[in-house]
Amino acid sequence: MSKYTSHSDTIVALATPHGTGPIAIIRISGDEAFDMVEKVFFTKLEKPFNLKEKETHTIHFGTIRAGGVIIDEVLVSLFKAPRSYTGDDSIEISCHGSLFIQQQIIQLLNAQGARNAEPGEFTLRAFLNQKFDLSQAEAVADLIHSNSAVSHQVAMQQMRGGFSNKIKILRNKLIDFASLIELELDFSEEDVEFADRTELKNLILSIQHILERLIESFELGNVIKHGIPVAIVGKPNAGKSTLLNALLNDDRAIVSEIPGTTRDTIEDEMTIDGVLFRFIDTAGIRDTSDVVEQIGVNKALDAMKNSAIIIYLFDAHELSEKDLVLELDKIRLHTGNSQVLAVCNKIDTEDLSDLQKEYEEIDNLLYISAKMNLYLDDLKTKLVAMFDSRTVNITETVVTNARHADALRKANAALYRVAEGLGKNIQVDLLAQDIRYALEALGEITGDVSSDDLLANIFSRFCVGK
Amino acid sequence: MSKYTSHSDTIVALATPHGTGPIAIIRISGDEAFDMVEKVFFTKLEKPFNLKEKETHTIHFGTIRAGGVIIDEVLVSLFKAPRSYTGDDSIEISCHGSLFIQQQIIQLLNAQGARNAEPGEFTLRAFLNQKFDLSQAEAVADLIHSNSAVSHQVAMQQMRGGFSNKIKILRNKLIDFASLIELELDFSEEDVEFADRTELKNLILSIQHILERLIESFELGNVIKHGIPVAIVGKPNAGKSTLLNALLNDDRAIVSEIPGTTRDTIEDEMTIDGVLFRFIDTAGIRDTSDVVEQIGVNKALDAMKNSAIIIYLFDAHELSEKDLVLELDKIRLHTGNSQVLAVCNKIDTEDLSDLQKEYEEIDNLLYISAKMNLYLDDLKTKLVAMFDSRTVNITETVVTNARHADALRKANAALYRVAEGLGKNIQVDLLAQDIRYALEALGEITGDVSSDDLLANIFSRFCVGK
Repeated sequence: MSKYTSHSDTIVALATPHGTGPIAIIRISGDEAFDMVEKVFFTKLEKPFNLKEKETHTIHFGTIRAGGVIIDEVLVSLFKAPRSYTGDDSIEISCHGSLFIQQQIIQLLNAQGARNAEPGEFTLRAFLNQKFDLSQAEAVADLIHSNSAVSHQVAMQQMRGGFSNKIKILRNKLIDFASLIELELDFSEEDVEFADRTELKNLILSIQHILERLIESFELGNVIKHGIPVAIVGKPNAGKSTLLNALLNDDRAIVSEIPGTTRDTIEDEMTIDGVLFRFIDTAGIRDTSDVVEQIGVNKALDAMKNSAIIIYLFDAHELSEKDLVLELDKIRLHTGNSQVLAVCNKIDTEDLSDLQKEYEEIDNLLYISAKMNLYLDDLKTKLVAMFDSRTVNITETVVTNARHADALRKANAALYRVAEGLGKNIQVDLLAQDIRYALEALGEITGDVSSDDLLANIFSRFCVGK
Repeated sequence: MSKYTSHSDTIVALATPHGTGPIAIIRISGDEAFDMVEKVFFTKLEKPFNLKEKETHTIHFGTIRAGGVIIDEVLVSLFKAPRSYTGDDSIEISCHGSLFIQQQIIQLLNAQGARNAEPGEFTLRAFLNQKFDLSQAEAVADLIHSNSAVSHQVAMQQMRGGFSNKIKILRNKLIDFASLIELELDFSEEDVEFADRTELKNLILSIQHILERLIESFELGNVIKHGIPVAIVGKPNAGKSTLLNALLNDDRAIVSEIPGTTRDTIEDEMTIDGVLFRFIDTAGIRDTSDVVEQIGVNKALDAMKNSAIIIYLFDAHELSEKDLVLELDKIRLHTGNSQVLAVCNKIDTEDLSDLQKEYEEIDNLLYISAKMNLYLDDLKTKLVAMFDSRTVNITETVVTNARHADALRKANAALYRVAEGLGKNIQVDLLAQDIRYALEALGEITGDVSSDDLLANIFSRFCVGK
């Protein structure tokens, strides 16, 4: 029996971030959790201290001891099945956050027979105990790694079952029809039609309509999760790095670097008004004396192509209005769908009204001084507005998970074949097969249909302790 | 009124290590903690959810909301005064460990009026509420940063009041006498002696005996806390770095690097059998072709002088027995109190019995191959044994805190003057003054005597959230 279909042993792991801190939490879950902790936990009040007799959701102060040695003074929080995260009996031990103590307590519980949990195993158990479905479980991981208000909101909605419910409603409608179709299969020699073909066709079309919107939302979802790519381009010394630094320093608290890269190389993330942006400093890729001409041969072109927004930064007075129009046209020619935003830098050395006169024909031109921190808020407001003007409304369900998007596409393709087949009056067994495909694909999202491989793949991406 | 003498506001901080993880704990403490959390915490079961009516040490599941927006699904643990860490009403909010969520919840509580806690402020409050004394409070910080069984044991003993009790007993004995002496001062014109001088002298001597042992224990305590310094010296290519790597890799799980340095520069820590060692790779300081001659001019000599143990590593057959004796003598000449351990490396390329014959006159010589991982356990066992052979017994109280050691020295010096004065029959007011000095010094350890500066200095070294 695989751990993805059933579980019986007791697992333990550190549940707080690795490192030293005031408090650390060690989580133990499984049938023997209470027995195991009882053997190492002591209080002054009662000896022996019978944890199982205590009520669920209560906290008890005492010491963890190995032999006669006190490992730590701790609080133990009791969660009795099914009222725990996993759905099994669970205990959280709140200890002093020393690495040594964390290690000692975990080893002590190992000695009692608790196995070290694998990544995501607590959440896997919650899924197996039907505390939530697969899409909700995945949202837990997204929630932990969400770093902007928008990605947080989308993950929270998914964790609380918003997306799952939508999928389940679609799937249940389809199941009703599928069962009629399957019934026809049983009576296939009698040429009966239990399922109304027109009704089925309408249902398929309405489901497809919803699926297509969800699939479309993934483009936005992906951007929400990984940040809206913004390329900063411009001639050398236009102030690209200064601008990036000014934007980032302003917002240090919630800046995080893309793992494995450093500030001065390629990418930096920052959140503006709860929206995550991913800035690509093309200066770091290569300096070019003419942005558009030379860019064609290097990676900066790719960066621009893959960006949702391109900031074209230039020195005040360095370009004539005519040349600026030419530059912007050339950029637009090379980039397809990206929105291009022209930004005039270094206005601290110039007269703003002169500049505004000089470039009066250019729409939406922003004037800033990255160095003197002038009008950067206008730039930020503009970036957020450019994001908001995108098509999909975030209050609707947004797909952020590539696995879900794939499953939705599979379901949609199968339903497309069903719709086509209905038009051509194809055999009922072929119809039934494609409906089954669609049901399976939708079921994979919520975990109503799952395999060991699928679950292994999903939960191995979790951190240990969740 | 200073925050070091009284407190009334409500403080909040992250209590788990910084970073992303499955769970984070946000701790809030103060008179308004329950009111503040009540305004942002919601459950399905009751609305409004009256936290104050719930029992202490209970856990409640619900959501934290800002306006209509759900920030997270959380558990709140209730601790009513005085049954909390600080002694004040406290709540711990266990949320998903996303940086964004941590930040949002703290900001939400800030908006309710909770102030961000300063370093050590929760423990400061526990001290002010007499949950424990100053030496115990300091032990909390030591406990969190303890990284070996021995340093953990010493900190735990101190946190549980072992050291404080010892000091308090000494101080109380002295107070009894001090009050008699002070009484004599009131009757100074009548030339009476309430305090028996012989008894006082005996008391002073017995207290001094204990103080001196405690002061001596600080040398050990310091080493326990910061690791036993072990210098690895030897000619270039003797295999110093290979040895260090071999020792460290064997024990990766509990290796930590000295902050700010990297593996290949100066120092590395590791724990062997619960004892923390701090290895100083003199190869990283400077390679010398002749260890002792050239070492005089560089930092390696300091490293050797400050080491408790010096490992002299040499290539098998590279030195004659006679030269080895000379080298070891030269090292001993330059190092004073350090213990020197000769280690013959690269025995994998030689015949061990040949080597043992060659160096048979050298006591305690170890034979290893760092590269092939041969006999490294013998070396580790030897290092631990060299530590154990030191004078002080760890089962006794060990002073690990420089502040305590200073206070003990001050008390001892004052008592020395008292003892001397008693011999010379000096005036009672001078006696009284020195006894007061001694009482004050001892009182500073436990916090019976404290000043804002002292407390500020101690608690500012804590981490935030403790």
